[in-house]
Amino acid sequence: MPIITLTSDFGTLDGYVGAMKGVILGMAPTAVVTDIAHDIPAQDVEAGAWCVGLCWAYFPVGTIHIAVVDPGVGTDRAGLLACVDGQYLIGPDNGVFTQPLSQAKTVEVRKLRDSIHRSTGPSTTFHGRDIFAYAAGLLAAGEADWRALSEPVDAYTLLAQPGPAYDETEVRGRVLHVDRYGNLITNIVADRLPPDAQWMVRVGGATVSAPDLSRTYGDVGEGSPVVLIGSTGRVEIAVHAGSASRVFSVDRGAEIVMKKLV
Amino acid sequence: MPIITLTSDFGTLDGYVGAMKGVILGMAPTAVVTDIAHDIPAQDVEAGAWCVGLCWAYFPVGTIHIAVVDPGVGTDRAGLLACVDGQYLIGPDNGVFTQPLSQAKTVEVRKLRDSIHRSTGPSTTFHGRDIFAYAAGLLAAGEADWRALSEPVDAYTLLAQPGPAYDETEVRGRVLHVDRYGNLITNIVADRLPPDAQWMVRVGGATVSAPDLSRTYGDVGEGSPVVLIGSTGRVEIAVHAGSASRVFSVDRGAEIVMKKLV
Amino acid sequence: MPIITLTSDFGTLDGYVGAMKGVILGMAPTAVVTDIAHDIPAQDVEAGAWCVGLCWAYFPVGTIHIAVVDPGVGTDRAGLLACVDGQYLIGPDNGVFTQPLSQAKTVEVRKLRDSIHRSTGPSTTFHGRDIFAYAAGLLAAGEADWRALSEPVDAYTLLAQPGPAYDETEVRGRVLHVDRYGNLITNIVADRLPPDAQWMVRVGGATVSAPDLSRTYGDVGEGSPVVLIGSTGRVEIAVHAGSASRVFSVDRGAEIVMKKLV
Repeated sequence: MPIITLTSDFGTLDGYVGAMKGVILGMAPTAVVTDIAHDIPAQDVEAGAWCVGLCWAYFPVGTIHIAVVDPGVGTDRAGLLACVDGQYLIGPDNGVFTQPLSQAKTVEVRKLRDSIHRSTGPSTTFHGRDIFAYAAGLLAAGEADWRALSEPVDAYTLLAQPGPAYDETEVRGRVLHVDRYGNLITNIVADRLPPDAQWMVRVGGATVSAPDLSRTYGDVGEGSPVVLIGSTGRVEIAVHAGSASRVFSVDRGAEIVMKKLV
Repeated sequence: MPIITLTSDFGTLDGYVGAMKGVILGMAPTAVVTDIAHDIPAQDVEAGAWCVGLCWAYFPVGTIHIAVVDPGVGTDRAGLLACVDGQYLIGPDNGVFTQPLSQAKTVEVRKLRDSIHRSTGPSTTFHGRDIFAYAAGLLAAGEADWRALSEPVDAYTLLAQPGPAYDETEVRGRVLHVDRYGNLITNIVADRLPPDAQWMVRVGGATVSAPDLSRTYGDVGEGSPVVLIGSTGRVEIAVHAGSASRVFSVDRGAEIVMKKLV
Repeated sequence: MPIITLTSDFGTLDGYVGAMKGVILGMAPTAVVTDIAHDIPAQDVEAGAWCVGLCWAYFPVGTIHIAVVDPGVGTDRAGLLACVDGQYLIGPDNGVFTQPLSQAKTVEVRKLRDSIHRSTGPSTTFHGRDIFAYAAGLLAAGEADWRALSEPVDAYTLLAQPGPAYDETEVRGRVLHVDRYGNLITNIVADRLPPDAQWMVRVGGATVSAPDLSRTYGDVGEGSPVVLIGSTGRVEIAVHAGSASRVFSVDRGAEIVMKKLV
């Protein structure tokens, strides 16, 4: 009973997600199909990559992750089939799987064979249904080994993941993601910061004093900003019971500078 | 382990969908309950019908589709129980199942018996929980044949589905649905167009040259309009990396005219 | 195959819900994980409590309900593990489970032991993944009795649930919840009203004549207000094919006065 996760920018209103579920359950009725998100902003591959990146590693070996945020559908971009630490990834080769492909201990990336599509032939605009769900159905039903569905590739797409710049006096990073609470999640990994340092943090023109990184949002009063180590191990800027994104007028991509005080 | 799909305009916030899932899983704990959509605009039967229509056919024989977009709840509109190509439909008799009832090869439509409701008696405002989920639970648990739950009807409701008008020089159709990307999906079935014709398409006061129907969105530059055959086999007007609905100020129901050039 | 329900204010975009599902399915791959809602307004415990309250009772014995609306994450608020009528509740001890803890026939409330967390140690900002999903996984996998995961508590949190005030001539209640249709659901339980009374209802400065409580929305013309007994057994003020919340400019918490006419 393999687990199949679905991430997309389809929304649910148009029936596209329902069609994918129908294709999968028609082929593998005992598969456990579970939704991750379907409200990824339309064609925002980076947002899709964040969502998949945050959760894929918690699923068990054998899980099949389908992610369809696919502005290039029907063009010559390949369909990707990869195995990462015993889990499978199926979707467009456009970087939506950047995190698992970068984080896993064992990574084998191939591309879906052109012959893998529903018998009616693939549409040129809905590979989610005609190719990706179909391939997942074959895999989940145990009808084919994953390598039989795919062929080698020379290269595959990863989104750029620029790291922060460290020097003696400061760390310059970026906002990777703004979450639903308006928390600013940065690319600064807390493990790599000098222990016991004290900080001033520049964000969107403002300065937040963070002599110590806080433990959690409730460490400061309501409406106050707080710099903490978030649940992904990265430095995060939040406003307790508020939105740091709104308070600092800052969005994905903004620069964050941590100045060392001591 | 029957599959039960849920489509509604309930949203998820109010707990109504949770109540339906509880009723079903309480009666048929091994049923596979899967969400299609719960964000159908409130009481928009046409939008619900689109969503169900786009996905029902991909599910396997034995699937039970519940759709509740039900402005007439508690009035004398009947509850419908139908079998279409071996799948079951349960919901209000108001046209929300227009597509499967029109498209399936074998269609048998009946209405739910008045006696089919939770033992506490049906509320007059929440048939989704008290009647439709309950009926699906009985069916999924194998406690009753579908005909035992229902009785014959003389007539049932279908939404009007006006087709396009063809003549020598043009095809006049309508926008059936605007999807999340702002693509305009029309009622013009591509199979019925003369092969090798070339077209000018009038949409919302503008004219789009479409000498050939395109293959996919990426066939044109970003921001450019494109006329293509969409994944439902219908003519679709899109804007690459943009929203045709916004660009042309066009919504569901708008007229689309394809003028033949050659 | 235990059922696990998920209610949260996480949204789905950030991958937090996906991470919880991964943790659960990694520990208990045959668990049936089903979504109740993830669009609870951020940190609105009252809204989460409404949603859980409306649906929990329909689920079968053995179901595990996880609800995470948790503004106090990482502070010293306890994690709650309770058994209510044979179902389990897991989440922060902040009132999100007020309804089942108040409504169930048998209620035993304990708190999660500090030792119950993923082996990597709990983050201070994501107990949903590190503690609540983990505890549910242990329970669902049958690896521990619920009491072994928890310890007694002296007290636990319930949200205030002020009842209406009755006197000879009127009932003064409040709006408990505004649903997606703009229906105003009050704290006035219909069973407790004198039978055959006739009413004038004051809502947001306006007066609605309701000589008899109506059966359903369609009992009045489109755009007309209607006072009826809703699907939770409470008095509800609606506008047929419209939004009572908008028409009367009334939101959660507003006062509703029913004046007896006869």
